[in-house]
Amino acid sequence: MAFIGSSELVPRVLAGEVRAIARIITRAEAGMVECRPALDAIYGHAGRAHVVGITGVPGSGKSTLVAKLVSACRQTGRRVGVVAIDPSSPFSYGAILGDRIRMSEVAADPGVYVRSMATRGAMGGLAQGTLDTVDVLDAAGYEVIFIETVGVGQDEVDIARAAHTVVVVSAPGLGDDIQAIKAGVLEIADMHVVSKCDRADADKSIADLKNMMAMGLAMDRGNSWQVPVIPTIAPRGEGIPELLASIDRHWTFLHDSGEIDNRRMLINERRLLKAAEDLLRLRFVHRSDGRIPQLLEQLRVRSISPHSAAKCLLEDIQSGKEP
Amino acid sequence: MAFIGSSELVPRVLAGEVRAIARIITRAEAGMVECRPALDAIYGHAGRAHVVGITGVPGSGKSTLVAKLVSACRQTGRRVGVVAIDPSSPFSYGAILGDRIRMSEVAADPGVYVRSMATRGAMGGLAQGTLDTVDVLDAAGYEVIFIETVGVGQDEVDIARAAHTVVVVSAPGLGDDIQAIKAGVLEIADMHVVSKCDRADADKSIADLKNMMAMGLAMDRGNSWQVPVIPTIAPRGEGIPELLASIDRHWTFLHDSGEIDNRRMLINERRLLKAAEDLLRLRFVHRSDGRIPQLLEQLRVRSISPHSAAKCLLEDIQSGKEP
Repeated sequence: MAFIGSSELVPRVLAGEVRAIARIITRAEAGMVECRPALDAIYGHAGRAHVVGITGVPGSGKSTLVAKLVSACRQTGRRVGVVAIDPSSPFSYGAILGDRIRMSEVAADPGVYVRSMATRGAMGGLAQGTLDTVDVLDAAGYEVIFIETVGVGQDEVDIARAAHTVVVVSAPGLGDDIQAIKAGVLEIADMHVVSKCDRADADKSIADLKNMMAMGLAMDRGNSWQVPVIPTIAPRGEGIPELLASIDRHWTFLHDSGEIDNRRMLINERRLLKAAEDLLRLRFVHRSDGRIPQLLEQLRVRSISPHSAAKCLLEDIQSGKEP
Repeated sequence: MAFIGSSELVPRVLAGEVRAIARIITRAEAGMVECRPALDAIYGHAGRAHVVGITGVPGSGKSTLVAKLVSACRQTGRRVGVVAIDPSSPFSYGAILGDRIRMSEVAADPGVYVRSMATRGAMGGLAQGTLDTVDVLDAAGYEVIFIETVGVGQDEVDIARAAHTVVVVSAPGLGDDIQAIKAGVLEIADMHVVSKCDRADADKSIADLKNMMAMGLAMDRGNSWQVPVIPTIAPRGEGIPELLASIDRHWTFLHDSGEIDNRRMLINERRLLKAAEDLLRLRFVHRSDGRIPQLLEQLRVRSISPHSAAKCLLEDIQSGKEP
């Protein structure tokens, strides 16, 4: 089939045509320069969807939860998008074992679009690729978009923070190591889910979360919003209606309180910075004026430090190739 | 006590004085501008240590392994540094439950310096702070420096790759989610450790790893180096002498094969880029010419896309405040 220019795909994306959506996303994820004007146009049409980040440590049962949430959301008649960050390399087993299969129970529904993103590419750019994908689904008319990420690592946490509503999933009985990681995302939660509440130690997890919140860890998320802790047993659907109700209530809260403007501003700030970092990285890679080998040689003999070399690099960033 | 300028601390760091080391590291981690010339000088004196990255998924038993490795290394008379990336926020329970306590069995030894870094700060800069710390310990005469990170998230993986030797730790019997994450670091391993080999399912993990490697996942790590898979039971010390021998053998291999030059070059490239990203972020935060509010307003009304806004931002990055 002939190559269809990305700009020609835009009206088809806006009409909700699935194949056009898939193509644009593939090009965005690959960082293709050709699709940037189309993505710019799509960004201009996005901005209506409720973007919900679902994040949690490995083993917390996020994927099952998201699958059930999608079904519940569909029952309210809304079109639903899912962007799952696949925490594996493109060359590995991860993509086979991962979210794609678990999401298959909802993927046959035409009112649902599921997309799995790889986390690691030579160029970085995970956040930008993910958020471009969210824009595409948003502009295509999906009303609720779930971003599922592992809540570990700065990139992943940043992506979760790009959502209007952040749901942090914890499972009872995970070890020290895992709890410590979980702590890193506690303060970004608009709501907590404790999964696997058929386990005997679930009550302790719920109590621990409530204690941590009482200690002020969730204070900066809009002062009149009470962060709920929602127990679930996702495979049986228990707690899912409560969770969806809470997500919807948060969306209403954001609008009623005017907090939505503030949150959108923070999201745009982070996104602008990420995009600038991605561009910087591309210019670094494509630069061909000999400056980088020169700096690397100075680093090798330690006549300059990485920090000073980076300063030199930024001095003349404008002369870099335009990606 | 009066403030001692960082530059005055440099000769004391080079003499191995622990309090001077601690101060410089604290300032580096905080991103204090005052200490940059000192860190530049320290970078010039570093470059002798063998830097070993130990990375693995949550629950893989990395910290116990590192503690045992440090003891084994000390028995050979070498001075040992440890930089542990604490995957929690500074405000949370993580720092209490974390590596600091588990490392306490070795921390009383004056030939060992252990430092725990927080992963999340407003300014990012984890990689730079960590590698500055490695430089300080290197220049102070620590001969082997272990960097312990959770092998999840781009930042953490990047840090592991800044080591001369990368050890990837896996535990038997972890779930799908965790295995998928592990896959992301498989290809950066110079050697694999399977921990908790007193478990019945350990043999399967060892066989799986060997299969994955046979499929070519570890090919790009220097062609004549055979990536070993080392079974351990760290609490009992089993497998630790073999692991240390393998780490030492890898260091010898890097030098005998000349591969060390290539690896240092790759480390410097990544480090230069990271430092440039950190600078970019700082300039973004400190910029006060009104350009950012202007771009944010355009983003709000969606008259510009994040990518185009980022381009505008890089156009005039030179006018940003110098951090």
